[in-house]
Amino acid sequence: MKLSNRVQKMQFSPIRKLAPYADAAKKNGMKVYHLNIGQPDIETPDTFFQGMNNFKESVLKYTNSQGMEELINSFIAYYKQWNIEFEKDEIMITNGGSEAIMFALMAICDVGDEVVIPEPFYTNYNGFSDVAGVNVISFTTKAEDGFHLPSKEEILSKITDKTRAILVSNPGNPTGVVYTEEEIRMLADIVKEKDLYLIADEVYREFVYDNLKYTSALYMKDVLDRIILIDSISKRYSACGARIGLVASKNKDLMKQILKFGQTRLCVPTIEQLAATNLINTPKEYFQKVKEEYEGRRDILFENLSSIPGVICEKPTGAFYVVAKLPIKNAENFAKWLLTDFSYDNKTVMVAPAQGFYANEGLGIDEIRISYCLNKDSLKDAMNLLKIAIEEYKKIEK
Amino acid sequence: MKLSNRVQKMQFSPIRKLAPYADAAKKNGMKVYHLNIGQPDIETPDTFFQGMNNFKESVLKYTNSQGMEELINSFIAYYKQWNIEFEKDEIMITNGGSEAIMFALMAICDVGDEVVIPEPFYTNYNGFSDVAGVNVISFTTKAEDGFHLPSKEEILSKITDKTRAILVSNPGNPTGVVYTEEEIRMLADIVKEKDLYLIADEVYREFVYDNLKYTSALYMKDVLDRIILIDSISKRYSACGARIGLVASKNKDLMKQILKFGQTRLCVPTIEQLAATNLINTPKEYFQKVKEEYEGRRDILFENLSSIPGVICEKPTGAFYVVAKLPIKNAENFAKWLLTDFSYDNKTVMVAPAQGFYANEGLGIDEIRISYCLNKDSLKDAMNLLKIAIEEYKKIEK
Ligand SMILES: Cc1ncc(COP(=O)(O)O)c(C=O)c1O
Ligand SMILES: Cc1ncc(COP(=O)(O)O)c(C=O)c1O
Repeated sequence: MKLSNRVQKMQFSPIRKLAPYADAAKKNGMKVYHLNIGQPDIETPDTFFQGMNNFKESVLKYTNSQGMEELINSFIAYYKQWNIEFEKDEIMITNGGSEAIMFALMAICDVGDEVVIPEPFYTNYNGFSDVAGVNVISFTTKAEDGFHLPSKEEILSKITDKTRAILVSNPGNPTGVVYTEEEIRMLADIVKEKDLYLIADEVYREFVYDNLKYTSALYMKDVLDRIILIDSISKRYSACGARIGLVASKNKDLMKQILKFGQTRLCVPTIEQLAATNLINTPKEYFQKVKEEYEGRRDILFENLSSIPGVICEKPTGAFYVVAKLPIKNAENFAKWLLTDFSYDNKTVMVAPAQGFYANEGLGIDEIRISYCLNKDSLKDAMNLLKIAIEEYKKIEK
Repeated sequence: MKLSNRVQKMQFSPIRKLAPYADAAKKNGMKVYHLNIGQPDIETPDTFFQGMNNFKESVLKYTNSQGMEELINSFIAYYKQWNIEFEKDEIMITNGGSEAIMFALMAICDVGDEVVIPEPFYTNYNGFSDVAGVNVISFTTKAEDGFHLPSKEEILSKITDKTRAILVSNPGNPTGVVYTEEEIRMLADIVKEKDLYLIADEVYREFVYDNLKYTSALYMKDVLDRIILIDSISKRYSACGARIGLVASKNKDLMKQILKFGQTRLCVPTIEQLAATNLINTPKEYFQKVKEEYEGRRDILFENLSSIPGVICEKPTGAFYVVAKLPIKNAENFAKWLLTDFSYDNKTVMVAPAQGFYANEGLGIDEIRISYCLNKDSLKDAMNLLKIAIEEYKKIEK
């Protein structure tokens, strides 16, 4: 029976594909530290659950396709705190940031068009591009540069007459990079000169450490009609399972067109929208505390990880990931081996091989992504396990 | 700024596009009977809201991409009641039946491939096809035949070497048709002979009247690997705002591939999945009562509608819609006029022009779809208004 080339070309999630081995290890009584997924362990604020109680109807109806007005208003209020101004018809609520990325690509690209992305990048950008028939063209950013952007010339060299947009995650997954104002300015200049869109995936906006200044793409006032913002409550409020995100742009024509995709899939869950609406009432201290917690974890992780002989990594300044180069040949085999063959004190760790985060073949083969969605003691223990495992694996790797 | 041809080609929802006129009428103090949307007014069963309380975690996490095991099991139990057997790896939970249709098309069609659909059909099939780059090829079914299928030859004449599937909604939206066993058998024979899939959209399965026997596509045992089931709790349990549906197939290879789309968008809302899991505990009487209610409405609607001079329609036997031919020239203008210019006793009705349900140009121009998601008294009143409005409009229509 025929299957589409489209689906056959797609990869299974490189982050999720080791899951069966982890399940098997756990069934065998092993403790597995999950450093592989960006699933925050921080408590979802009460405001979310209180908001659910605002549902008082007896019929659970469709909402309108753009999203509930109350929710859109609450996002407008949230962006005001960041000095970003949006009007009601410039925001559409989506099923997580995921659907927002999908809709953005679909609205500006036809099949065969290109999107330029710095690699390593969030692997699902591949999946969305495959679905939309869009080709990902990547330029490489490097651990030794803290994954900051290369020169303008290098980025320009990737742009062809098929390029429709530059897509960046800032702060970066998997890199933890936070772009400087100069870097965002450079991207703005490029999209202006080359008549492109800038898709700004800012779902980790709140997670910026070391008192660094955060520069939203929406601060580039001269190119606002070219900026498509991707956002989500998943990471910000530790509410991944709510599936509430948004796509927003000051380009009203674009937003009007994107609404067609929204109408086709009817709407986003009603009760989750109500719950998300109430998040605006979350005390300011929540973010402060959460940020401090992640910052502390980052420090512990970095200290322990970088002290493992042969491991190369830069201290990340945002999100909750770090990409590290290991003193082994093949990180994918290693990640599998950690689950199937390694054990110390009946414990092991699960990491994400970084290869899947690169579009250019051959890159990231000896790298892993570690997510620090674990408490500090667990992180220390996990880094100790990783150290022992690397020593052991080096001896047996062919 | 360039927009994709893909999005520009798409139509705004023909059902939702009259909404601003309805809003304006309501702001002017008018009562508007909504006969235009398939939004059930029946209460969502308590079991759903009770199920929400089964969420006891402090972190609202992603679930796995296939959907929660408990929910999948509850659907397996539901299908058993219909003598349909599914295994766990044959079902994937989706964001409503909408996403299920999208994933099915994406998994079996490449850009330029064709899907054959009897028209009039659920307009969003167009939207999904546009997104997937798939061409909709339709054959016409007629009010005077109760919208039953034409001959096998006529359907076969639409199939080319680009055809990948036949897509049907049974019971039908907007037609209310319930296909006979012979019709489903014929479709099964065609997909077998022509090496196609049959996408069976059975979201209205529970809404079959006059004690008619319902034939699921999954009763065609010899072609099970070709059947892709689309389902949803939206209509069945009056829970449209939950956005819980599924795509299912006995073709495990296909399901494995479809999971890639699921992984790309991560997961479906966690709390809604828990709530939906508990729907299996809804008392049997719920369906019985709901069905009787809709059947009674159908009778009242049909009696009143068919007695309006010049209106042509057949009594529908399923779902909660009827397509009627009106003694006017242009139903879209009429539908708009109803909201902008007509009023009787400070009331009016909103209907869906049927043109958008046809793929072949020029069809359905004098037809409307009426949805009977309104109580019986309102339906009677609405039909009276429609009668008066038609009389009035006939006099002024150019
Ligand atoms: C960079 C980035 N963008 C978008 C998303 C999508 O998240 P969601 O769909 O939960 O909003 C993620 C999730 O991990 C991400 O890391
Ligand atoms: C025939 C048909 N299929 C699928 C759907 C999609 O419904 P949902 O996404 O709410 O499950 C609808 C909604 O009206 C429909 O009429």
